[in-house]
Amino acid sequence: MKQYLKHDPWCIVEEGFHREYNEITESVMSLGNGRMGQRGNFEEKFTGKSLQGNYVAGVYYPDKTRVGWWKNGYPEYFAKVLNAANWIGIDIDIEYESLDLNTCEVRSFRRMLNMKEGYLERSFVAVLKSGKELQVNARRFCSIVDDEAGAIRYSITPLNFDAKITITPYIDGDIRNRDANYDEKFWDEVRKETGYGEAFIEMRTRKTGFHVCTGMAVEIEQDGKRVDFQSQPIKYEKYVANRMTLDCQRGQETVIFKYAVNLSSLNYDPDHLMRETRQYLKQVVRKGFEKMEFEQKQAWADKWKMNDITIEGDIAAQQGIRFNIFQMNQTYTGEDERLNIGPKGFTGEKYGGSTYWDTEAYCFPFYLATADQKVARNLLVYRYRHLGKAIENAQKLGFRAGAALYPMVTMNGEESHNEWEITFEEIHRNGAIAHAIYDYVRYTGDEQYLVDYGLEVLIAISRFWSQRVNWSEAKQQYVMLGVTGPNEYENNVNNNWYTNYIAVWTLRYTLEAIEIAKRLDAEKFNALCDRIHFREDKEVATARQIIDNMHFPYDENRQVFLQQEGFLDKELMPVSEIPKGQRPLNQNWSWDRILRSCIIKQADVLQGLYFFEDEFDEETIRRNFEFYEPMTVHESSLSPCVHAVLAARLGLKEKAYEMYLRTARLDLDDYNNDTEDGCHITSMAGTWMAVVQGFGGLRVENDQLRLNPYCPDNWDSLAFKIRFRGALLQISVTQSGVSVQNFSSHPVTITLYDEPLTIEAESRKKADRKVLA
Amino acid sequence: MKQYLKHDPWCIVEEGFHREYNEITESVMSLGNGRMGQRGNFEEKFTGKSLQGNYVAGVYYPDKTRVGWWKNGYPEYFAKVLNAANWIGIDIDIEYESLDLNTCEVRSFRRMLNMKEGYLERSFVAVLKSGKELQVNARRFCSIVDDEAGAIRYSITPLNFDAKITITPYIDGDIRNRDANYDEKFWDEVRKETGYGEAFIEMRTRKTGFHVCTGMAVEIEQDGKRVDFQSQPIKYEKYVANRMTLDCQRGQETVIFKYAVNLSSLNYDPDHLMRETRQYLKQVVRKGFEKMEFEQKQAWADKWKMNDITIEGDIAAQQGIRFNIFQMNQTYTGEDERLNIGPKGFTGEKYGGSTYWDTEAYCFPFYLATADQKVARNLLVYRYRHLGKAIENAQKLGFRAGAALYPMVTMNGEESHNEWEITFEEIHRNGAIAHAIYDYVRYTGDEQYLVDYGLEVLIAISRFWSQRVNWSEAKQQYVMLGVTGPNEYENNVNNNWYTNYIAVWTLRYTLEAIEIAKRLDAEKFNALCDRIHFREDKEVATARQIIDNMHFPYDENRQVFLQQEGFLDKELMPVSEIPKGQRPLNQNWSWDRILRSCIIKQADVLQGLYFFEDEFDEETIRRNFEFYEPMTVHESSLSPCVHAVLAARLGLKEKAYEMYLRTARLDLDDYNNDTEDGCHITSMAGTWMAVVQGFGGLRVENDQLRLNPYCPDNWDSLAFKIRFRGALLQISVTQSGVSVQNFSSHPVTITLYDEPLTIEAESRKKADRKVLA
Repeated sequence: MKQYLKHDPWCIVEEGFHREYNEITESVMSLGNGRMGQRGNFEEKFTGKSLQGNYVAGVYYPDKTRVGWWKNGYPEYFAKVLNAANWIGIDIDIEYESLDLNTCEVRSFRRMLNMKEGYLERSFVAVLKSGKELQVNARRFCSIVDDEAGAIRYSITPLNFDAKITITPYIDGDIRNRDANYDEKFWDEVRKETGYGEAFIEMRTRKTGFHVCTGMAVEIEQDGKRVDFQSQPIKYEKYVANRMTLDCQRGQETVIFKYAVNLSSLNYDPDHLMRETRQYLKQVVRKGFEKMEFEQKQAWADKWKMNDITIEGDIAAQQGIRFNIFQMNQTYTGEDERLNIGPKGFTGEKYGGSTYWDTEAYCFPFYLATADQKVARNLLVYRYRHLGKAIENAQKLGFRAGAALYPMVTMNGEESHNEWEITFEEIHRNGAIAHAIYDYVRYTGDEQYLVDYGLEVLIAISRFWSQRVNWSEAKQQYVMLGVTGPNEYENNVNNNWYTNYIAVWTLRYTLEAIEIAKRLDAEKFNALCDRIHFREDKEVATARQIIDNMHFPYDENRQVFLQQEGFLDKELMPVSEIPKGQRPLNQNWSWDRILRSCIIKQADVLQGLYFFEDEFDEETIRRNFEFYEPMTVHESSLSPCVHAVLAARLGLKEKAYEMYLRTARLDLDDYNNDTEDGCHITSMAGTWMAVVQGFGGLRVENDQLRLNPYCPDNWDSLAFKIRFRGALLQISVTQSGVSVQNFSSHPVTITLYDEPLTIEAESRKKADRKVLA
Repeated sequence: MKQYLKHDPWCIVEEGFHREYNEITESVMSLGNGRMGQRGNFEEKFTGKSLQGNYVAGVYYPDKTRVGWWKNGYPEYFAKVLNAANWIGIDIDIEYESLDLNTCEVRSFRRMLNMKEGYLERSFVAVLKSGKELQVNARRFCSIVDDEAGAIRYSITPLNFDAKITITPYIDGDIRNRDANYDEKFWDEVRKETGYGEAFIEMRTRKTGFHVCTGMAVEIEQDGKRVDFQSQPIKYEKYVANRMTLDCQRGQETVIFKYAVNLSSLNYDPDHLMRETRQYLKQVVRKGFEKMEFEQKQAWADKWKMNDITIEGDIAAQQGIRFNIFQMNQTYTGEDERLNIGPKGFTGEKYGGSTYWDTEAYCFPFYLATADQKVARNLLVYRYRHLGKAIENAQKLGFRAGAALYPMVTMNGEESHNEWEITFEEIHRNGAIAHAIYDYVRYTGDEQYLVDYGLEVLIAISRFWSQRVNWSEAKQQYVMLGVTGPNEYENNVNNNWYTNYIAVWTLRYTLEAIEIAKRLDAEKFNALCDRIHFREDKEVATARQIIDNMHFPYDENRQVFLQQEGFLDKELMPVSEIPKGQRPLNQNWSWDRILRSCIIKQADVLQGLYFFEDEFDEETIRRNFEFYEPMTVHESSLSPCVHAVLAARLGLKEKAYEMYLRTARLDLDDYNNDTEDGCHITSMAGTWMAVVQGFGGLRVENDQLRLNPYCPDNWDSLAFKIRFRGALLQISVTQSGVSVQNFSSHPVTITLYDEPLTIEAESRKKADRKVLA
C-alpha cells in the first residue's frame, strides 16, 4: 500500500517526482477515450523505470501460447492487447544535453490527472548537468470528441540561459509488448511519410494483419505567436520524426503543439488508411488545441452530469469513486459493439484479451445505470456476434448441437486462456452472460431484445448446460462434475453450488424467454427455431427434467448451501486465524495448500445470492453470508464489492464499509502491489456497485427502481445519479434524510424504503432516512 | 503400429533402409552400458531425419521452467537429460562427394542390434551421384566392461573405383537438446587438444558445471595390416577432428577403428579430467577392438545367464522380452548409487529427469529378482540420499517437522515437474518409495537395511502422510483431499482409494519397521530418534489414529472400492463402447471430456490390489478387477502389466495375455507412435512383471518363493531365471509340465502350486502343470 498521491476531489496529484513509483503513476494517470489510450508516460526521453504504453482498441495479436504441458483443447494462441506506436514523444536537446528526468535534477515536479476535464498535466524544472535550468509545462488529452485524436501542449522555458534548443517530435512504431511470450515483435512497418512539421507511419500487426496509421503535426509558438521553423524530416526503421532547432531566450516560453491521430483498419479501408489519416489530422489541426480542449471539457462535464457520485466528508473516498468512474468512462464508451472492457483498459497490457466474465458480472450494472441504453445493449450484442465462435469453442471440447461455451478470455470470440482448470472448467462464465441479458431486460424493459438477439444466445448456453450435466445413478439427480467456480482457490470440483444454480437458472430463464418471444413475435421465434434447429418440445422437456432434478449440495445442519460437494470435509477456519504475514495467500502459500484449505478467493455461493437475491429469503442470505464471509480472503479485486452489497442488504454496515474500502482505492493506493502493470479496470465497476447497490440499495423490481439508501457513518453525504428508462434521478443521502431529484420531464415512481414515492418532473422529494435493521 | 523390423530371437534387424522410420530405428537400436549410451545413429554424415543422441549418466541441465501460469511451489527448473558430445562421427569424403545416405542410392542396407553380444552392426552399399559404389560395414558397442569407453570398427571398400578417400573421425561438442524449453545451448567448451590420430574435447554444462571430457583415437588397417597415415588435426568451436586421406583401391577394404572414452566430473576431479581421459583412452587402445569385443560378448553372456527368458513357439514374443531385458540392462547396472532409471534411458531425451515413481513401482522387482542384491539396494539408497531434498520439497509446500515428499521427477532429489495437479498432488509416489523398501526386505530378508537406512525414509514419508490427511468433522474420519491418483485422467480428487490405502499402509509398515529396528539395534534406533527428533509415543499414536480412522470410499452395492469419492456420479461405460477412431483418448478427446469420463488411464485401485494382494481375498480382487478393467484404457505404458499380473492371478488367461501383448513389443512395433522420441524404458520392466509375476505367478511369502506358473496357450514353453537369496533358479513351463532347475550349491525350497518343493543343489525337479482355475 502506497499513499504518495495527494487526496483531492477531482484530481490525482503527484507532488515531487516519485521515480521509484513511476510505473504506478503511469498506470493511474492513463488517458483513454474508448478508442485509444495511453499510460501517463513522459513526452520527452526518459531512461528511468517506465512502461511506455499506447493502445488502440480492438487491435490485438495472437501470441503463441506458452504452456508447460499441452492439453487437448487448449487454444493455439493468447490474444494480446497490443502496445502500439508511441505518438506522444517529443525529445528535447539543449546543446548536446538531452532532457531526461532520470539523469538531471528535478525541481517543483507536479503531475496531475484532471478527471473533471479529462487531461493530464505535468510541470517541473529540470536542472541539467551543465547547470542549465529548464521549466517545462505539459498538458495532453485523448479527445473524447474526436476519438481518434490526441493533442499535446508542451512548453519549455529556459530559466537561466539562452540557447539553441533542438526539438524532435516523433512517432515510434518499433514497440514491443512487455508480456510477449517469446519476446517477439508484433508489428511490421508498411509505409511512412514525412513533411513539413508532420510525419506519418503505418504499421501492420503480424498474423492478424491489422493496420494502424499514426500521424502527427507540430506547431510552435513563441511569445504567444506562431513561429515558422526549419523542420528536418527523419525516417528510421519503424520511426518518423521532425527535428527543429529554435533560438530560445532566457525566460522566453516556447510552446510545442503536437497533434496526433491514430486510425486503424477496423474503421477504415487499409488501402486508404494513410490518406484518411492525413485528412483526419488536417481537421484536428484546423480545430486547434484550444478548441479541442474546450470541447473535451464540455464532453467530460456532460459525462459527469450523468454519472457523478459525490461523497461529502471524505476526500479520499470522493477521489476514489470518481477515479473509478473516470477510468470506466475512458475505457469503454459503448459506441462500438465490437469493443469491450479489457481488464487493464488502456492502462497496461497484462492478462491480454479484452473480455472476461468481468464485463457481464461486474461492469454491466454500471453502464446499464449510468449510460445510454444502447451502451449496455452493445455489450450484449458483442457476445451475440461471438456466438458462432462460442459454439465452435464448445465443439472443440466435445459438445454438439449448437451448445455454446463462451471463452474465459477473448478478443475475437475465440478462447485465449490456457489453464485447463479455468479454460475448460470455469464455465460459470456462461451463466453470467445469460444473466446480463436478464439484467438488461429487467432494467430496460426491452423484451424485444430477446426476440432479436437474446433468446438465441440463451438457447445456445442452455444447450451447453443440458449437455454438461449428467445423470448420477448414485444420487438419482443431475450433477455437474469437474468445474471451477468463481472461487479459483478450488479447482475441478463437483457440484459447485453457484455453477449448478446459474445453470438451472439459465434453463429457467430460457423457458421464460421462449414464452416472451412467442408472445411478442411468434413468426420470428419460429424462424429462429428453424435456423438453429431448436426442437422445442424435446429441448424444453430436457430442461424441465434438469431444473426439477438438479443436485445442490447443502448442509442440513447449518442450513447453508455448500460451495461444492465435500466442502465440509475441509478443516474450517476463518481468515482471521491466518497470520497477516501469510497474506496474500497466493504469494505465500503453496498452491497445494491453497487448494486444500477452506479459504475462498472470491465470492462464490455469495455471488449466487447476489445475482439471485430475490429467490432467497433474508435469513438464508444471512446464514450463508455468516458462514462464508469469514472464510473469504478477497484476493480477487472482484470479490469485496459483492460482499459489500450483501452486507449492506443485511444491515451489516461496518462490514459493508470495510468491503467497500477494499476496492475503492485499490489502484490509487496500489493496494495489491501490482498497479504498475496497469489499473484493475473491471473491478472499478465493483466499487460503483458497492456504493449504488450497497449503500444505495438500488434494485429493479416490477419495472420500478427500488432503493434503500443510507450514508456510511463517516461520510456527511452521498449522492449518486441513476438513469432508468428515460429518466435521470439523483439520490442524495445524508445521515438524517434522503432526497430524490428527478431531472426528467415526466414523473417517476420509485420504491423508497418499501414505500412507493412519486417524484414529479424536474423536481425533488425529500424523505426521512429510514434506519435499516 | 509398424512392423518393419524383422522377427529374430536375438537380434533386432532392419533389412533395407527405412528412411522415414529412421528416428524410430535409432531409438530401438540404442546402445548403453549404464554409464553412457547413444541412439542408433550413423557414424557418417546423414542429412535425413535423425535425432543424434549421446548421453552421459548423471549429467543434467536445469532448463528454465516453461509454464503458462505460475503457481507457488513450482520448481524454477526442469532437470533435463543432456544430449552430450557426439563421439561416433566419421565423415567420409570421396573426391568432393560426401557419403550421406540421404543423398545417395542405398543398396543391401542392413542394420542390426545384436542383443546377445551387445553390439550394433550396419552394412550397405552406397551408390554416389557420380556412380561410385562404396561398401560399408560398421560395428560398434558401448563397453560394459570398460564402461566409460566405446569402440567402432568402420570399414569401407570401393567397389568400382580407385580413389583418394578422406576420412574425418571427429567429436562434436556443439550439441543442443531437441527438447530445450527456450532453445538454449547447455554446453560450453572448456578445452580441446588434438594429436596424431587423436583428439580430446572437454565441455562443461552451464549452470550445473558438470565437466565431460571426450577423447577419441583412430587406427587404420588396409589389407588386414595397420597403416600409418597423415593426420591433419582440426579444431573448430566445440569440435575436434582428425582428417586423413588414404589411397583406396577398388576391392580393397580400409578399416577405421575409432576408440572413444567419455569421462565426467561425477567420477573424476575436473582439474585432471583431460589427463585422466588420455590415460583411459590409452588403455582402451592398448586393449584393442578385438579384445574389447570379446570381453563385451563374455560380459553379455554372463548377464543373459542370470536373467534370460526363453519363449518357444513365438519368435516375436521371444524377441520382445529379450529386447526389454536388454534395454533394462543397458540402462541401469546398479553399480552406482547416484544413478537411476530414466524414462528414456540412453535412447532419447524426452521427459527429462532420471527418476520417476516408475523406478520403485515397475522396475524394482526386475532388478530385485535378476541382479545382485546390491543393485536393488542401491536403488533404495539413491532415495535415501535424496531424503534431505524430499524434506525440503515438502517444506516448500508447507509441511514441517521432517515430513518428506519425494519429487515426481528428479535428477538430484529436487522436484523438476511443474503441473500442479501432478507435482503437488500425485503424492502416491511417496507410497511407492516406501513400498520398495518393504519389497526389498521381503525379498532379501535384509532387515538390517531398515536399521541403516530404510526406517529413516519410512518415518519421513509417514510424517508426510500424517500431515497430509485431515480430520473431517462431517465424516468423523480422516480424509485426504486434493490428490491425483495413478490414473492421471482424474485430477485433484478427494479420497483416492489407492492413495489413502498406500498412506495407511506406509504408516502400518513404519510401525512394524520401528519394532524391527528396536529388536535388531536399539541403540542405533535411539540415535536415529534423536537425530530426526522422532517422538515415538506421539507420532506412533497419531499414526494409529489415522490407521484406525481413515476413510476409504466404497460402493456397498457392488462391493468394490471406489477409485475416489464421487466416482459413481459419473456416467459409467466400458472402453469397448468408445469408437476405435477416438483412441488414444488423449489425442482425440478434450481434456475436459477425459477428466469427466469414467475412463481410467492406468491401473489405480488395481495398482493397490497388485501391491497389496495379500491383504485382500480373491473375490474382492475379482470384483474390483471386473469393475475397473473394462473402464481402463491403458494409455500409460505402465498400466497393462499390472492388469496382466492380476488377470493371471485370477485365472483370466486370455485377458492376461492380451495385457501382456500391450507392452511386450511396445517400442519394437512403435505401438504408441512415439518411439522416435526414445524407448519406454521403465515400462519394459512391466513386461518382465507380466511374464514372471503374471504367467510365472512369482511371489515371495514367508521367506520363500511361491510360484504358480503356466505357459500361455500359444507358446510351447516359457522359461525364466530368478535370483533369490543367493540361489539362481530357472523355472521352465510347457503346456504339460513344470521344471525347476536349481543352479546353486545349496538346496532351495519353494512353494509350487501351493505345495512345498525342495530342489537339491545343482539339480532339477519336474512337476505336473497344475491347471489353474
